[in-house]
Amino acid sequence: MKDTKNKNSKSSSQIWGGHYAKSPTQIMQEVNQSIRFDYILYNEDIDGSIAHCNMLAKQNIITEAECKLICDGLEDIRTEINSGKFKFRIELEDIHMNIEARLREIIGDAAGKLHTARSRNDQIATDLRLWLKKRCDEIDDLLLQLIKSLLEQAKGNINTIMPGFTHLQTAQPVSFAHHMLAYIEMFLRDRERIQDCKKRINISPLGSAALAGTPFNIDRDFTAQQLDFAAVSRNSLDAVSDRDFAVEYLATIAICAMHLSRLAEEMIIWCSRQFQFAELPEEFTTGSSIMPQKRNPDGAELIRGKTGRIYGSLNSLLVTLKSLPLAYNKDMQEDKEPVFDATNQITACLKLMAAMTENMMAKPKNMRAACESGFPTATDLADWLVTNLNIPFREAHHITGKIVNIAEERNCALSDVPLEDMQKIESGINENIYQALSLDNSFCSRNSYGGTAPECVSDMISFYEQHILAQ
Amino acid sequence: MKDTKNKNSKSSSQIWGGHYAKSPTQIMQEVNQSIRFDYILYNEDIDGSIAHCNMLAKQNIITEAECKLICDGLEDIRTEINSGKFKFRIELEDIHMNIEARLREIIGDAAGKLHTARSRNDQIATDLRLWLKKRCDEIDDLLLQLIKSLLEQAKGNINTIMPGFTHLQTAQPVSFAHHMLAYIEMFLRDRERIQDCKKRINISPLGSAALAGTPFNIDRDFTAQQLDFAAVSRNSLDAVSDRDFAVEYLATIAICAMHLSRLAEEMIIWCSRQFQFAELPEEFTTGSSIMPQKRNPDGAELIRGKTGRIYGSLNSLLVTLKSLPLAYNKDMQEDKEPVFDATNQITACLKLMAAMTENMMAKPKNMRAACESGFPTATDLADWLVTNLNIPFREAHHITGKIVNIAEERNCALSDVPLEDMQKIESGINENIYQALSLDNSFCSRNSYGGTAPECVSDMISFYEQHILAQ
Amino acid sequence: MKDTKNKNSKSSSQIWGGHYAKSPTQIMQEVNQSIRFDYILYNEDIDGSIAHCNMLAKQNIITEAECKLICDGLEDIRTEINSGKFKFRIELEDIHMNIEARLREIIGDAAGKLHTARSRNDQIATDLRLWLKKRCDEIDDLLLQLIKSLLEQAKGNINTIMPGFTHLQTAQPVSFAHHMLAYIEMFLRDRERIQDCKKRINISPLGSAALAGTPFNIDRDFTAQQLDFAAVSRNSLDAVSDRDFAVEYLATIAICAMHLSRLAEEMIIWCSRQFQFAELPEEFTTGSSIMPQKRNPDGAELIRGKTGRIYGSLNSLLVTLKSLPLAYNKDMQEDKEPVFDATNQITACLKLMAAMTENMMAKPKNMRAACESGFPTATDLADWLVTNLNIPFREAHHITGKIVNIAEERNCALSDVPLEDMQKIESGINENIYQALSLDNSFCSRNSYGGTAPECVSDMISFYEQHILAQ
Amino acid sequence: MKDTKNKNSKSSSQIWGGHYAKSPTQIMQEVNQSIRFDYILYNEDIDGSIAHCNMLAKQNIITEAECKLICDGLEDIRTEINSGKFKFRIELEDIHMNIEARLREIIGDAAGKLHTARSRNDQIATDLRLWLKKRCDEIDDLLLQLIKSLLEQAKGNINTIMPGFTHLQTAQPVSFAHHMLAYIEMFLRDRERIQDCKKRINISPLGSAALAGTPFNIDRDFTAQQLDFAAVSRNSLDAVSDRDFAVEYLATIAICAMHLSRLAEEMIIWCSRQFQFAELPEEFTTGSSIMPQKRNPDGAELIRGKTGRIYGSLNSLLVTLKSLPLAYNKDMQEDKEPVFDATNQITACLKLMAAMTENMMAKPKNMRAACESGFPTATDLADWLVTNLNIPFREAHHITGKIVNIAEERNCALSDVPLEDMQKIESGINENIYQALSLDNSFCSRNSYGGTAPECVSDMISFYEQHILAQ
Repeated sequence: MKDTKNKNSKSSSQIWGGHYAKSPTQIMQEVNQSIRFDYILYNEDIDGSIAHCNMLAKQNIITEAECKLICDGLEDIRTEINSGKFKFRIELEDIHMNIEARLREIIGDAAGKLHTARSRNDQIATDLRLWLKKRCDEIDDLLLQLIKSLLEQAKGNINTIMPGFTHLQTAQPVSFAHHMLAYIEMFLRDRERIQDCKKRINISPLGSAALAGTPFNIDRDFTAQQLDFAAVSRNSLDAVSDRDFAVEYLATIAICAMHLSRLAEEMIIWCSRQFQFAELPEEFTTGSSIMPQKRNPDGAELIRGKTGRIYGSLNSLLVTLKSLPLAYNKDMQEDKEPVFDATNQITACLKLMAAMTENMMAKPKNMRAACESGFPTATDLADWLVTNLNIPFREAHHITGKIVNIAEERNCALSDVPLEDMQKIESGINENIYQALSLDNSFCSRNSYGGTAPECVSDMISFYEQHILAQ
Repeated sequence: MKDTKNKNSKSSSQIWGGHYAKSPTQIMQEVNQSIRFDYILYNEDIDGSIAHCNMLAKQNIITEAECKLICDGLEDIRTEINSGKFKFRIELEDIHMNIEARLREIIGDAAGKLHTARSRNDQIATDLRLWLKKRCDEIDDLLLQLIKSLLEQAKGNINTIMPGFTHLQTAQPVSFAHHMLAYIEMFLRDRERIQDCKKRINISPLGSAALAGTPFNIDRDFTAQQLDFAAVSRNSLDAVSDRDFAVEYLATIAICAMHLSRLAEEMIIWCSRQFQFAELPEEFTTGSSIMPQKRNPDGAELIRGKTGRIYGSLNSLLVTLKSLPLAYNKDMQEDKEPVFDATNQITACLKLMAAMTENMMAKPKNMRAACESGFPTATDLADWLVTNLNIPFREAHHITGKIVNIAEERNCALSDVPLEDMQKIESGINENIYQALSLDNSFCSRNSYGGTAPECVSDMISFYEQHILAQ
Repeated sequence: MKDTKNKNSKSSSQIWGGHYAKSPTQIMQEVNQSIRFDYILYNEDIDGSIAHCNMLAKQNIITEAECKLICDGLEDIRTEINSGKFKFRIELEDIHMNIEARLREIIGDAAGKLHTARSRNDQIATDLRLWLKKRCDEIDDLLLQLIKSLLEQAKGNINTIMPGFTHLQTAQPVSFAHHMLAYIEMFLRDRERIQDCKKRINISPLGSAALAGTPFNIDRDFTAQQLDFAAVSRNSLDAVSDRDFAVEYLATIAICAMHLSRLAEEMIIWCSRQFQFAELPEEFTTGSSIMPQKRNPDGAELIRGKTGRIYGSLNSLLVTLKSLPLAYNKDMQEDKEPVFDATNQITACLKLMAAMTENMMAKPKNMRAACESGFPTATDLADWLVTNLNIPFREAHHITGKIVNIAEERNCALSDVPLEDMQKIESGINENIYQALSLDNSFCSRNSYGGTAPECVSDMISFYEQHILAQ
Repeated sequence: MKDTKNKNSKSSSQIWGGHYAKSPTQIMQEVNQSIRFDYILYNEDIDGSIAHCNMLAKQNIITEAECKLICDGLEDIRTEINSGKFKFRIELEDIHMNIEARLREIIGDAAGKLHTARSRNDQIATDLRLWLKKRCDEIDDLLLQLIKSLLEQAKGNINTIMPGFTHLQTAQPVSFAHHMLAYIEMFLRDRERIQDCKKRINISPLGSAALAGTPFNIDRDFTAQQLDFAAVSRNSLDAVSDRDFAVEYLATIAICAMHLSRLAEEMIIWCSRQFQFAELPEEFTTGSSIMPQKRNPDGAELIRGKTGRIYGSLNSLLVTLKSLPLAYNKDMQEDKEPVFDATNQITACLKLMAAMTENMMAKPKNMRAACESGFPTATDLADWLVTNLNIPFREAHHITGKIVNIAEERNCALSDVPLEDMQKIESGINENIYQALSLDNSFCSRNSYGGTAPECVSDMISFYEQHILAQ
């Protein structure tokens, strides 16, 4: 046997007790340790331990004096970590063991009482849930900030007409405000989803112990209350092997990333020389090392690019959990890095997108000019035929298509096609048709609920201000 | 130019009107059509059209007579499809155009009025939401059936002791009932998620028209009520380009598939000759074409294998939606096949798993025999030292490890290690230790809330019967 | 026990022999069957059986008479399937059993000799490899067709100047031909990859039997030769449980789909009113049911959208294979549908893209006009400063940035900035600078190997014509 | 406008030159920078710069003196980084700019000449390709080490009989050596794939400049040779936007991870108390914080769990590249972290698996005992009927099934079923049948090429030793 020497045998056998004579090989220790990333959970780990310790004292499983000793020690450790003085050790595997070993150094053997009636299995589930609860609230708040930025853009652009696209082809005129509100709807759904997800995160597994519960007379409701959990888990096997909540969290973030990628794509297109619908200030673009004229929308591109990474994290955890028998398996240690990375990415993306949205400068003239080509009022022409000449929509659609052909041949807007040319196609058409073909009229006419007409958009802005932002 | 001839030019230009002189090439038509899979939505499409038509009449946009003509025609078409007489045509692209073209054949030009104030963009979103609402209810019900099967297994096995595993290594004794309840918890969360998902599906996009709303005086609340939607969408651009609800549905199903894969993996392991914890009846296994003795748990393997496919569908739709600018893009046609396939797979898997669970025969003797090895009461020994000798848990853990070493050397159970041997390790140990080392005592002692003790499991079964199944 | 009745008990126990008293339940049979999709492999299955049968006769394991009887029967079955007369039966599970059962009907008990010394495990692996070999060749050929279309576009556009983009911002002038050649490079790599993949597909597993080889005196080289395999597999356990080749095939297709999605995205952008760099003929666009003026690039959008589906299939199979113990597991039945679907999608996409590329009309005037804005010759200005004034590139880059500022303020092209204004920034600049700022000069000057200059592009076109297309 | 102040304005405008008045906001800078991860490429970046610089001198674009100054400066920087003295700065964005800025500090303005005739776009592509070439070789070597470990296990276990499984049900006896060789085949294919992948990595993009080539008279073959690339890229647009090679690398690694997950799953099952087919030494297992008796195969579980992460990285990059227009987009910066992480994971997993394989202790007695149950010689019985009584295989299969039923009822092995009981099923059976039913005979009889018989396995081991390990 080779490659099995290890200098840290003392520390490891301290942890796993008398059954172990040898320590892990170096490569095993390297792969096995999680302290390189789970140190992030130190606050949650300490909070959980303090709650557990208080409960043990309340239930007379440890004495009040022991409890005080342990809790004071834990707070000392928190201070050490906060101040950067704490030395994390790989041979102690994870955040739990790093803290417990230090506690023993500080307070002596009483530290050994802390792990009564619990296991690292319920401890890590508790830590991760506590951490994710905070992240849900933070993401929810970042979504709100982004929504506010979108709303500001909308408020200034209720009458800014742009070509509404389908298939990236001019479809019908819409307002830039209406376009911004579409994204508000997406991000509001993301908020709903993150809140629903939080309901399922907000459940305490603490006290499930290794997998089967514990014979100690513990009070799980007490620790749940101390940690501000809404409820306690109902099955100990499930409690230590459940990572649904992390998958759901990643799925929620992935949908949000998808929304961001759509807005980012549009910003990139809008900032192209060919569109020029919007401009990002210098502070949100970057230059080129070789092409001195460039102002690249790197921020939007990075947000778009990071979508892949966030989808990857979701996929990663789903794959890891596939086919795992009950209860805890070490595979589940691989839950944390995708969750941490996806959180970092979405947090940065939401902040950057909110700042870009706030500072993006719409170009109303260019947007309106773009409406001149592409026949955006063709549907209005068809609708006019339905309403005024009682022609079935399908036939009206057909007639309109022919008039569009004329405009294309003449290389003019629909509103510049002479009346007599239209009448050759459909004799009932009269002067009034030109009102329908006006961009402004077209745009104002679409006043069905949820439509682009300024009155609708204004009402919707008021609705958001009253119901969403007032929370 | 080659490969552009097409015999069906009449049908296609009927649809797109007078602007088109030519029809799509064959390969274009082949890729573009969706009728091969979206015919499934025919009922929802007809329901949506009838609701829209009634609204047009109520708002005096069409006459009552026209309305009746159209609605009767649509019901005739439904009957034709139900009876297999309807002929779906690829050159008519999709379910909407297939139905509208047939309507025109049946009732004539009045058919053309149906498409007033709507677009295929809001129509397909309405159809898919209506279809998914039903699927949510069906999946919810299938989850309930599976939960009932698990509960039946649990009720018969409250005192069936099996080795609880972590890392597939014997950890502590648990009951088979407790193990079944762990899966009930997972599937209950799936029910919660599918219901939360349904909230976001249950919103009517109808009346958003192509992307911008409509100038016709429509009543969107009316159509929403007719179609039993809980609310109407607030932004027309978003309404026609949103497929969040389908992604969330797929994510929900993917998590459920992950749960199924875990139970399937356990069944496969339990049915192995080496475990023999359970047996599946012949009807749920298959034989081999070459090895006459085989009874393979193919059902469980297929459920496990289909996890990949369902994850793939989730990934597929997320990728498709990435970076799409507003509003509708044809890429979104690729939403349906992953949704349909994942629905078919999860439906079949849930049915099969419920039937397998119901008919699986647990083998209590084998499970108990397995507990004899693996020292499942080692934690009880450590806990006894804590409780009776006031030894800190960490030290008790260490002492226990040494006693496990003795048992391993003697190749005996912990309860067969002589008292004097234990006392050499820790002099305070006395006769009472053997009570802690008994499998039954160990198992009954874990009576913390959510633990495996029979009293806890019985209480939980009552809870499920009262609160979940009584719904 | 419920839900276990089944009318087809005879057929199933025929297959699995005397060990089975009962047949699968309906839902089990439904999930277990694969005939709904693996019927596609009928030709390969028959080819494999004929090769196996000939080998059994050559090795005197069966008689020549039996061999002829079986082979004739198999060819009769092939004819039946080709003509649509064959009746596939779900209760016979898969293509192998459907064919064998029919063979017994046709030739009687001799049919039972065909399965000597083989198993469905090596049979299905053989079938799938034979099928995929053909698909590799087909995809390779479709890639070649697409490359030819790109080459045709390139040949006509060697001097068509368009803005080369990075970050969708104007960077430097390039030719449309050069842009087309970039895609040729991608698709040539796809060809290389599909050929490398085929090497690993082209290995015969036949004769590995169920998992361990066979005691019959078979000749595996003979069957491999008959089926045109390049080699035989070296380990029977691996041979029946290996699906690497299918994953690699899907990964290869996924990369190709990614390339197609990039070209499709560009076509969609080029066809927008704002770009108008290219136009697709009517036959490759579709209209709108509501907006009569639309010509949507649906073909390109669908190709882009199908990327998700193909990625999903790759992901699906990787997930399914994760953690499967040796040897064959039923999960592996889930290999076929992703492979079949991805093949159908990529085949259709390659055909459609080749036809669109061939028929796409570039708009040289619009492309050139687009070059007027965006300062595409800024790098040339910097390079001129380096070459003519011996200024380090970084400083030249800085100077150029300031001149770009002047052009932006004046809203003019770089070539319209007055000499004296430039000289205020850098006094060494002289009249010759305007040559560097000419679009045509800029574009012709980039003649490093692989560059956009017409001479380079012409050389490269010749290279492709001689080395790639001549194959 | 808020949140746009930045203290590092000097550094940034140094990079992008005179066109920029402001620096990026803090969140923009944070998201935009890549130095936190791309510092890893410093050696490749310096190597590439030195090759480029030598070429510029050879072509008289810079002087020999300038060349020496620059190259010496770069080597000084390499020394600084190697010794940990180099200070990476986020405001300088990436590894290229960090090195160039430091070069300017060391050698002054001559540093500005290094960037002549190149861009960060071709520079980063060169760096990543150089880095990946090394990784391909390393992974290839780690695969070889793992294969050697498997071969060692095989050599000691040619006659170790274990139950060969399909569906985790006993199928036929195989040797543990044969089982090990199956994995050798998988890892040999991984080696082939990584070598094929390297062919496509091993191409120099250097000299493609920003996207269009360069007007400087460069010699791309020279830099390619200096950097040991096999060829130069043929299209500048493609060269800077191609990341196929990274996707193919990730796909290759993902397939390898899938293989590792299969072996890991088997190790976990083998180490269970119920199987006990193998044991891992203490150094490769870990203990429990609560259950003192545990020896958990954490190493194998982590390898299995990391499969998800590696699949996630593949998915991530595929998604990021979807739909990107030519040429370089900033999204592509997201290529590095998945590549780096997947490399780290696969490297650690291969090392750990090789060490575990080498040190795993097979338990031949337990394996053989497991063969006693499960009727692994049933196929031999059927084959005996075919060979000796000339019964068609299908009928022999049926007869055998009935004899298995007898054995099951008697709860005995097939070899313990009395002859007269067999003769009641098929009268032709005689005493010789018991030879076929012997485990050792069964196992030795499967001597077809690639089969499990000791002679075959020995031959194959010799083959590997001569052809694979001798390389």
